[in-house]
Amino acid sequence: MDSIEFWYEFASPYSYMAAERIGRMAAAAGVAVQWCPFVIGPILKLRPGQASATQDAPPAQKAYRRRDVERLCLQYGIALNWPTAYPRNGLLAARVALAADGSWREQFSRAVYCANFVDDREISDEAVIRAVLRGIGQDEDAALAAALTPANKALLVARVEHAMARGIFGAPSFMVGDELFWGNDRLEQALSWARQPWL
Amino acid sequence: MDSIEFWYEFASPYSYMAAERIGRMAAAAGVAVQWCPFVIGPILKLRPGQASATQDAPPAQKAYRRRDVERLCLQYGIALNWPTAYPRNGLLAARVALAADGSWREQFSRAVYCANFVDDREISDEAVIRAVLRGIGQDEDAALAAALTPANKALLVARVEHAMARGIFGAPSFMVGDELFWGNDRLEQALSWARQPWL
Repeated sequence: MDSIEFWYEFASPYSYMAAERIGRMAAAAGVAVQWCPFVIGPILKLRPGQASATQDAPPAQKAYRRRDVERLCLQYGIALNWPTAYPRNGLLAARVALAADGSWREQFSRAVYCANFVDDREISDEAVIRAVLRGIGQDEDAALAAALTPANKALLVARVEHAMARGIFGAPSFMVGDELFWGNDRLEQALSWARQPWL
Repeated sequence: MDSIEFWYEFASPYSYMAAERIGRMAAAAGVAVQWCPFVIGPILKLRPGQASATQDAPPAQKAYRRRDVERLCLQYGIALNWPTAYPRNGLLAARVALAADGSWREQFSRAVYCANFVDDREISDEAVIRAVLRGIGQDEDAALAAALTPANKALLVARVEHAMARGIFGAPSFMVGDELFWGNDRLEQALSWARQPWL
């Protein structure tokens, strides 16, 4: 079966949209999805002269981003309440998602996005992540303990380095083999490529 | 009739794609297009800590941009030979396009894009712009003279300031009234909005 890697960041509204869309679209295209949680901060910090593309964008671009997200979500039929804190730190959520057994990683990730972008919860707060875990019927103590081991923390660092080594510079990104697609806008194209490359 | 403003920069491959697509798509949607040539450089220079989003992007993002443009053009059926010099300075072409009578501005603009992105010509070179003008049957001396008057140069500066005041921060951009859409990726959405806003 053709397959696609979905690299997502919990702070990112465009990653949220992709997370909401990718399941049904990939199934319809007959493409398997590998959910790859990561954090984009360490990669953005390496950009010349700017700490974060998200936070240091000019005011016009920040205002535009919110409007763009609102317009797109309404078109897609995706629920959205623009978070009162933006961007929120997705590190803890990424650690939990990475440590999650594959069987509930997607469910957990979508629940975190819902907490951030629908329920306006502070996802960097452990209590919020615990509530999300309970909400999907997972053992919160076990999940947190697994997320916070030195080995799992190191694994996330390695995943970010792996992403960067393959050319990833933003979120969400999709990889089909070595072919990179950046942004929710490219989900359709990435799925087409997974079925049949044209270049 | 509903209408849309198309703000484009001659250095920008995504503006080129939009220029190739907008005519037929807007006609099909029953939307009138106003071609608004400008230069994005003065706006990008105001970004914090970076001289140009195009030139100062990290290497991974530069490599990605070229691949993205090549993949998209092939999907759209748009001719492309990645320019040996990139980005090229579009100031002279923008001055000529702005001074152009409305009846040939679109034709001239598309011919400049063809020179830059298909024939790999140096569009900042006056000889190349003269050849483009001859190619579309315009009086090259008259067109250049009109482009280089102090009044026309000042008009372009004013257009850039007008764009910035309305929130434009990149190219291409589409304006439907005061509603801004950024990027070739948003052309379809902007045309839908021109027919019926949903927010």
